[in-house]
Amino acid sequence: MENIVVMGGGTGTFVVLSGIKDFEDFAITAVVSSADSGGSTGVLRDEFGQLPVGDIRQCLVALSPQISNGKSHITRELFQYMFDRGNGLKGHSFGNLFLTALTEILGSELLAIQKAAEILNIKGKVLPVTTDDVTLVAKYVDGSIGFGEEMIDSVSYSKDNENLKIEELSVQPRSEILSETKDAISNSNYLILGPGDLYTSIIANLVVDGVSEVICDSDIKIIYFVNLFTKHGQTTNYKASDHVSDIEKYLKKKVDYIVINSSEIPRDVIVRYYDEEHVIPVMDDLMDDDRVVRADLVSSTLSSQSDADRVKRSVVRHDSVKVGKIIRSLIS
Amino acid sequence: MENIVVMGGGTGTFVVLSGIKDFEDFAITAVVSSADSGGSTGVLRDEFGQLPVGDIRQCLVALSPQISNGKSHITRELFQYMFDRGNGLKGHSFGNLFLTALTEILGSELLAIQKAAEILNIKGKVLPVTTDDVTLVAKYVDGSIGFGEEMIDSVSYSKDNENLKIEELSVQPRSEILSETKDAISNSNYLILGPGDLYTSIIANLVVDGVSEVICDSDIKIIYFVNLFTKHGQTTNYKASDHVSDIEKYLKKKVDYIVINSSEIPRDVIVRYYDEEHVIPVMDDLMDDDRVVRADLVSSTLSSQSDADRVKRSVVRHDSVKVGKIIRSLIS
Repeated sequence: MENIVVMGGGTGTFVVLSGIKDFEDFAITAVVSSADSGGSTGVLRDEFGQLPVGDIRQCLVALSPQISNGKSHITRELFQYMFDRGNGLKGHSFGNLFLTALTEILGSELLAIQKAAEILNIKGKVLPVTTDDVTLVAKYVDGSIGFGEEMIDSVSYSKDNENLKIEELSVQPRSEILSETKDAISNSNYLILGPGDLYTSIIANLVVDGVSEVICDSDIKIIYFVNLFTKHGQTTNYKASDHVSDIEKYLKKKVDYIVINSSEIPRDVIVRYYDEEHVIPVMDDLMDDDRVVRADLVSSTLSSQSDADRVKRSVVRHDSVKVGKIIRSLIS
Repeated sequence: MENIVVMGGGTGTFVVLSGIKDFEDFAITAVVSSADSGGSTGVLRDEFGQLPVGDIRQCLVALSPQISNGKSHITRELFQYMFDRGNGLKGHSFGNLFLTALTEILGSELLAIQKAAEILNIKGKVLPVTTDDVTLVAKYVDGSIGFGEEMIDSVSYSKDNENLKIEELSVQPRSEILSETKDAISNSNYLILGPGDLYTSIIANLVVDGVSEVICDSDIKIIYFVNLFTKHGQTTNYKASDHVSDIEKYLKKKVDYIVINSSEIPRDVIVRYYDEEHVIPVMDDLMDDDRVVRADLVSSTLSSQSDADRVKRSVVRHDSVKVGKIIRSLIS
């Protein structure tokens, strides 16, 4: 059995988990950032003071079977359902409300995740990186400070901030890795990072006390998926090597594999992304690095955006089957 | 096997269903009014245009086991959970949101009820009296008109309306009994009505086209539970005989058994009810009627009110075990 930790949060992690959940010899633990403060999750976190439920929900759904007892898995569909109208309901994911109510009933976020995992009949485990109530703090090179995942995530391009770059990410208050998460990493053979927002999804986990320590103390092999596009305010103008060196700065360790998409992204998509978000495809400048693995990783169907979703989602994605295949080829 | 229809909605129906669900030889169908427009249900009905989910939820919960696979039945607890904070969430029952989301996913209220029944592993069936979108209309003796279950239900006492009485209840638009509900009544041996609000819970079902017809055309025996207290605006100053004659007017048939509580209600509770709602215990004036069955039916523990509940609930209740016992004695 290969013990695998997938660390992140957000749609990139969803893709990875979906791609590998059916490999019989994989025992998967998804570890998600506890600092998400956007969308439905942010509202619930403000009002109920619980762990960010959005990323946890996405991992639970990714690891649950699409078919249950020979029928479409209705609880899974419910978890993904987003209220598209209703005062105060619009934009809430039903799964987020489910986890919120479950936490209130059981009195513990961890028990709620466990119970939801059982109800959804998931393969593997989902854990928060910490149960401490943390907020991300980004110190930018220009001296300004960004508080909270939502604010850091939603920085958009303007002439005034065209070179915005994060100098240092941290969490406030200082927080400690959850002991179950620590054990999961200690006992695993592989750690998969990315694809996903470099700072708000990936490094957000690494800045929790104890995370890089347990990774460095173990023999775990690290597989890092480089994003398809840069992201303004987090990785403006970043090349592949910049992504890797930032990750390694917080890991305090080298990654073992760097997976980069090698297929062309349609020109019209590139133009639209540039126009709308001022982002560009990540340049692959790691020609001489023998840790690099290249493959076509792009989904051939473009995801659609849901009006009801409070959070803006990208529409060029890594493909879960292709991602699963490359992971399979690295772990054997 | 005894086929039994319990018709109503609201807490009285919850008590009856809870009291009889464990009788192995009972095949139970709960039929609920489709006209509820109060509380969380009313909000969801306005925003999603579905069947009133509150009464359906209560029946589903009443018929579900408290223990599932040797453990506390968490989905049942979730269905009863009421959000006690959160903008737009406060006062919503999680079960109502569950049924709402399920209806949106499955595209049908009946399929949603069926699927929820399956998920909750209920004993028996729950059906709406009609799937037509109906509103209750009460014509009062003073010529005034009340529209909607919530308005009719919430009439409170004042000097101006001290003798308020409903002359005629109807639904707008005219609507037809659901064929599954019609079949359930045709194929049943017993129909249980009440306890519950005479007009907004019980007669609300009888005014749907086809309901009294199928009852009159069948050999079904009717058991009617008289309420403990009058209710201002629906049964002001009503004695037991007034309740029965109003029911029979809409049934177009005599009831077979009239079940009346015979135990004392504590004096302080009576005073408080009178002060707060201007209601009195229903006087038992049916001394010469041999259809009457008397028993102690009052719950010895008084139910507490939930702050989060948008709807005011009474706190002297029929006791489900005592109600179950008396039904058991009548059906054998």
